[in-house]
Amino acid sequence: MATLGDIGVSALINILTAFAFLLAFAVLRIQPINDRVYFPKWYFNGGRTSPRSRGGNFVTKFVNLNVKTYLTFLNWMPQALKMSETEIINHAGLDSAVFLRIYTLGLKIFVPITVVALLILIPVNVSSGTLFFLRKELVVSDIDKLSISNVRPESIRFFVHIGLEYLFTFYICYMLYKEYDNIATMRLQFLASQRRRAEQFTVAVRNVPHISGRSISDSVDHFFKTNHPDHYLCHQAVYNANKFAKLVRKRDRLQNWLDYNQLKFERHPDKRPTKKTGFLGLWGEKVDSIDFYKQQIKEFDKQMALERQKVLKDSKSILPVTFVSFKSRWGAAVCAQTQQSKNPTLWLTDWAPEPRDVYWRNLSIPFVSLTIRKLIISLSVFALVFFYMIPIAFVQSLANLEGLERVAPFLRPVIELKFIKSFLQGFLPGLALKIFLYILPTILMIMSKIEGHIAMSTLERRASAKYYYFMLVNVFLGSIAAGTAFEQLDSFLHQSPTQIPRTIGVSIPMKATFFITYIMVDGWAGIAGEILRLKPLVIFHLKNMFLVKTERDRERAMDPGSVDYPETLPSLQLYFLLGIVYAVVTPILLPFILVFFAFAYLVYRHQIINVYNQQYESGAAFWPHVHSRIIASLLISQLLLLGLLSTKKAANSTPLLVILPILTLAFHKYCKNRFEPAFRKYPLEEAMAKDILDRTTEPEINLKAFLSDAYLHPIFRSFEEEELVEVRVDKVRVDRHQSQADNAETDDISSPSPPHHVYQPTSPPHDVYHHGSPPQYAYNLSSPPQYGYQYRYDVDP
Amino acid sequence: MATLGDIGVSALINILTAFAFLLAFAVLRIQPINDRVYFPKWYFNGGRTSPRSRGGNFVTKFVNLNVKTYLTFLNWMPQALKMSETEIINHAGLDSAVFLRIYTLGLKIFVPITVVALLILIPVNVSSGTLFFLRKELVVSDIDKLSISNVRPESIRFFVHIGLEYLFTFYICYMLYKEYDNIATMRLQFLASQRRRAEQFTVAVRNVPHISGRSISDSVDHFFKTNHPDHYLCHQAVYNANKFAKLVRKRDRLQNWLDYNQLKFERHPDKRPTKKTGFLGLWGEKVDSIDFYKQQIKEFDKQMALERQKVLKDSKSILPVTFVSFKSRWGAAVCAQTQQSKNPTLWLTDWAPEPRDVYWRNLSIPFVSLTIRKLIISLSVFALVFFYMIPIAFVQSLANLEGLERVAPFLRPVIELKFIKSFLQGFLPGLALKIFLYILPTILMIMSKIEGHIAMSTLERRASAKYYYFMLVNVFLGSIAAGTAFEQLDSFLHQSPTQIPRTIGVSIPMKATFFITYIMVDGWAGIAGEILRLKPLVIFHLKNMFLVKTERDRERAMDPGSVDYPETLPSLQLYFLLGIVYAVVTPILLPFILVFFAFAYLVYRHQIINVYNQQYESGAAFWPHVHSRIIASLLISQLLLLGLLSTKKAANSTPLLVILPILTLAFHKYCKNRFEPAFRKYPLEEAMAKDILDRTTEPEINLKAFLSDAYLHPIFRSFEEEELVEVRVDKVRVDRHQSQADNAETDDISSPSPPHHVYQPTSPPHDVYHHGSPPQYAYNLSSPPQYGYQYRYDVDP
Repeated sequence: MATLGDIGVSALINILTAFAFLLAFAVLRIQPINDRVYFPKWYFNGGRTSPRSRGGNFVTKFVNLNVKTYLTFLNWMPQALKMSETEIINHAGLDSAVFLRIYTLGLKIFVPITVVALLILIPVNVSSGTLFFLRKELVVSDIDKLSISNVRPESIRFFVHIGLEYLFTFYICYMLYKEYDNIATMRLQFLASQRRRAEQFTVAVRNVPHISGRSISDSVDHFFKTNHPDHYLCHQAVYNANKFAKLVRKRDRLQNWLDYNQLKFERHPDKRPTKKTGFLGLWGEKVDSIDFYKQQIKEFDKQMALERQKVLKDSKSILPVTFVSFKSRWGAAVCAQTQQSKNPTLWLTDWAPEPRDVYWRNLSIPFVSLTIRKLIISLSVFALVFFYMIPIAFVQSLANLEGLERVAPFLRPVIELKFIKSFLQGFLPGLALKIFLYILPTILMIMSKIEGHIAMSTLERRASAKYYYFMLVNVFLGSIAAGTAFEQLDSFLHQSPTQIPRTIGVSIPMKATFFITYIMVDGWAGIAGEILRLKPLVIFHLKNMFLVKTERDRERAMDPGSVDYPETLPSLQLYFLLGIVYAVVTPILLPFILVFFAFAYLVYRHQIINVYNQQYESGAAFWPHVHSRIIASLLISQLLLLGLLSTKKAANSTPLLVILPILTLAFHKYCKNRFEPAFRKYPLEEAMAKDILDRTTEPEINLKAFLSDAYLHPIFRSFEEEELVEVRVDKVRVDRHQSQADNAETDDISSPSPPHHVYQPTSPPHDVYHHGSPPQYAYNLSSPPQYGYQYRYDVDP
Repeated sequence: MATLGDIGVSALINILTAFAFLLAFAVLRIQPINDRVYFPKWYFNGGRTSPRSRGGNFVTKFVNLNVKTYLTFLNWMPQALKMSETEIINHAGLDSAVFLRIYTLGLKIFVPITVVALLILIPVNVSSGTLFFLRKELVVSDIDKLSISNVRPESIRFFVHIGLEYLFTFYICYMLYKEYDNIATMRLQFLASQRRRAEQFTVAVRNVPHISGRSISDSVDHFFKTNHPDHYLCHQAVYNANKFAKLVRKRDRLQNWLDYNQLKFERHPDKRPTKKTGFLGLWGEKVDSIDFYKQQIKEFDKQMALERQKVLKDSKSILPVTFVSFKSRWGAAVCAQTQQSKNPTLWLTDWAPEPRDVYWRNLSIPFVSLTIRKLIISLSVFALVFFYMIPIAFVQSLANLEGLERVAPFLRPVIELKFIKSFLQGFLPGLALKIFLYILPTILMIMSKIEGHIAMSTLERRASAKYYYFMLVNVFLGSIAAGTAFEQLDSFLHQSPTQIPRTIGVSIPMKATFFITYIMVDGWAGIAGEILRLKPLVIFHLKNMFLVKTERDRERAMDPGSVDYPETLPSLQLYFLLGIVYAVVTPILLPFILVFFAFAYLVYRHQIINVYNQQYESGAAFWPHVHSRIIASLLISQLLLLGLLSTKKAANSTPLLVILPILTLAFHKYCKNRFEPAFRKYPLEEAMAKDILDRTTEPEINLKAFLSDAYLHPIFRSFEEEELVEVRVDKVRVDRHQSQADNAETDDISSPSPPHHVYQPTSPPHDVYHHGSPPQYAYNLSSPPQYGYQYRYDVDP
């Protein structure tokens, strides 16, 4: 067990690591050449232009020679704090602002708790001094002297701990209530302050029934004209363009290779690049690379033209899903919240996600398979959480030295070297586990995609929930109880329900040192690594070297990314859990968590202001999950304290603690009723108020034109104008132009430029892409190593 | 343990008891004097008039002298079967028809299962013959030889049991699916076939906010005119008339006493009845009864007049609850299913129950207290289910012989007599328990009322759920595991989750004889008692003797009652549970359940056709609960079989059985998605279709007049016309009469007779009181020993 000294050393190492990261960041960020890596958000906002075009000599374009700027290497911190919350909402959206509020909530909760716990509990625990006597016989860490372990069994002092648990629970609930209230208000204000947006008028309808002798479009029109006669406006059919999108993706990869080779040729005009046609370019016929890729691209273009025709002409490519738009927000709100058909599995309506939030690929999943998919994924997640060690252990048993020697006998002499052997023996077994943990978020995201949600934001929330379960079982419980999660599951099944909190509760104080180290390694150093952005930095410079030809290409090579909710939210929630559980058990852990929250707050504030460019705006839809997981942490802490105290023979205190979970649950239920609807539904009062405002300010708006291609699969933006007209909401082109002309004076929103120039952010209605960022592809996430897949069809040869 | 012979004797006794009941019923029902007890439904339907008015001599008016009718004493059975299901729906409503379908579902499920189980399992179990060897040492019943206990541990024969469990589960799920589908269709058809009804246009709005300087009515009007401008029609304010209703109830009791005394005086004109004014008439001044009650009634009338004025004039008596009506069903469906206000705890909308289903008293409960009430009641139900034995044991410890002797020493010589002593010793301890079980349904109903539901049907469903939990824990688990529920809870908390099914599973086969006896006593004899209607018979004749003066009074003395869902549904579900659990364990139990289902089906069919007059029509809203409890029974049976088999060392079969609960749960989830919305929501498609039909057939209907007093608190029907006008939906009386005159030709529904004659079923719109029955009070249930509180204000002196 670690002594206080050990912790000190560990803290020092981690602080040094963090400082090294910060120093590296401070140096790298002021180099003009890295400007696009550390300040991409400002490029997207149009607030910054390339430093290369700003003049100056050749060297200063790439390297910062101003010595002064190196001295104030922490000055990003006050800068990050300057922006007010309202400005952040305008700058980066509500999601980001609320994400930052989680950190301030952490500070607001844990600063007073830390002060109270340290002032009251440390004296109570230390003066009790049981462990001083035992020291010789048992291995006890110094930390334990400050913890509840130091209190004698049956001591009356436990009432101090119980009292504080009550106090902390009430305080946390109070803070949570205030925060939920605040965020719900912010969300409603944010939604109310938004300008006219396509999703306010639109409802996603799934499982449109096939009626023989009628096309999907006709059924939709007929159904909504009958059942919403006063409100129905139009609908956008959804085409199954997944295959086409796949072709586009492949073609794009080829285009990258072509660019790379052309650039290579330009730089060394004497040597025309060649490649081998076989697998991975390792063997096969040697051909001229530029010709080869040009040829391939030409073939792809043919295939794509065919596929495009198929998508447009084949009635089977119209999916039984549609985006139905209404004349008013009221009409859309009504349709989204009501049951349409007698058969409740048909005509399922729900709010449409914003256009850039739609995950197009899942729209083609037949509705019937969704239940089965969900069942299978639930079982898989359960298996993954509890049994993931089994395949890894299997791989580990294969990936030992003997196996390696059998596969590659020629390595034997090297392997047999003593220090290499010991290194490999220490390294290999862990490798499988490390690879698994590295790709775990991707696996969870794929699982969520299989579940069939149609919005990116939902996908990320679901992946985040799965990751949380994994962390809860394998990091939190797994570290406290001995053995793998699978072994725990087995032992828990054979233990009585009252025994489980005892088993875990007893070992909690002993694991405090482990979690302190965990917080420093994962929290402190991890966050410092976050600000360094090492991976995007490397990728940006690689792209710059091999692909970038024009300033425009360089813009595309920027990968601002967005806050990685599926990973950051669960770890954030884990810190809340640790803080709440240890608050009365080992309060010395709390300052470490405080440091984490404060530091992470600064870092993420800086990142959100300067780097990240959110892909979608969900209006803080993740908040209810954060809230309920903090409540769950409270419940866990209460149960574990109950278990811990029952082993301390403080049985007479049990009834006192049993009331607390019931009160906490009641509080949760109240909050759910009071605030959650604000995140799930859209009140008619709001909808009507905005409708009335619209009607008075812009009475003659042409909504149909405004919605014309908001919910068009982004792939169609590469189509020809004539083809495009067929798939738009307002099919007749002349009509549209006519109406546009009519409204030209009163309404500048409904004048999309011709679709040829769709890359310009003018074609989709301005305020749909809230921050004027170029629309990005939904498959962005599915191919993480590549940079955001962006439009380039307008440069088709 | 019982042998087969014991069971035979028990069966004989119960069959004889049942026959005795049936015989008594057969004799009593053909006596003209009992006609109103056994055929009240026909009186309410107008299909039958008093037998006394049919002529004949004096004796035949009261006693049936026709010998022939005594010979065919079972002829009610074929008669009960004659009516078709459609006729039953028209005659008694969908609730009753679906209630009967539960019994046929039981037959459909258990007839094939019984045949298969008996044919396959009995040979398998008997030939295994483990128990033959053990007979000498262990006390084993003969029944056990036919059960799974007889199979040797580790026998391969267990796969027969597992196979049959699979087969039965699939078969039951298939039947449940078909039944749910059927009933959902029946419900939608029933709703679609109904004529125009107030509840189709009306939404109950709770938690209307108080806006200072504005009355509740004004806020409601303003809110709905703003947010549903095209659909809002009018609203009915709800007055807090609970105190007034209480006065009316008291006055009514006095009126009864007056009637009784007047009748007494008429019969013996020589002796004027007197009474003492003290407690219970035991002491105090002696006064003339008739004068006394007349005086009291006069005082009450004054009080009531004051209270009436208060209700009408005091703005505080208008509750923040209102019934809002819309111009179309579509508008109401939209409002009921959507969130209205930014603050989701304000303006809560839900479908209005039908007017006769409203439980008026709960409308005055402030919304904020509902969450707390629900929490408290949940905790109380938990305590009641698990700890009810504690207070009863306490009472029992008091109510012993010594206690009795101490309280009443003069009884000592009697008590000391040997046979009386032993009788009392056997009787007294059980008395507290028996009284508790007798009043349990009333307690549960009171608990449900405290929860604050506003519809009678919901109240009954909630009470039924609570009763089911009680039966499940105390009858089913309590009989299987030893000890009280409290002791079990304690032992379960200290057992591992895998141990619990084993503990219970092992004792299941041993308890088969107990449950067979239970089915015969509670099922067979209980149902035979149901048809006899002993309590209503006695009460009717008592009333006839003491209160009835006119033919009209006699009509009011009839108490048809309605099917007692809170008691019958849970016991029905218990029989399903028993049948499903024992199907593979001790199949010999199944025939007893079959007899119960068949017999109960006949009896309830007869009762529904001839006796019961449902108080409300919920459109089979209880079905989802029945469905999910049968699913729960399946899950319980699977878990217990798993536990049982694991003690039989058939561990290798465990994985096979683990899949089954998962499949069952998936099936449940599918059914919930597929069918449950039909019971909770009203699809817009349906609403629109009916609206369109209405608009074409009756384009000029005056809806406002139609709805004018549909949702008026029934107490107001006793008010003066001038007062009444103030509280109605269309406040201006002249207007209303005007509009009535306008519509007189096209619309016969909207012509309520003047409120003086409100007792006639014409005043509330005809089809609101579906079967033309007189409106009954909502407090009917809260005062069970008295007969339905009905209107008599029109005969006020």
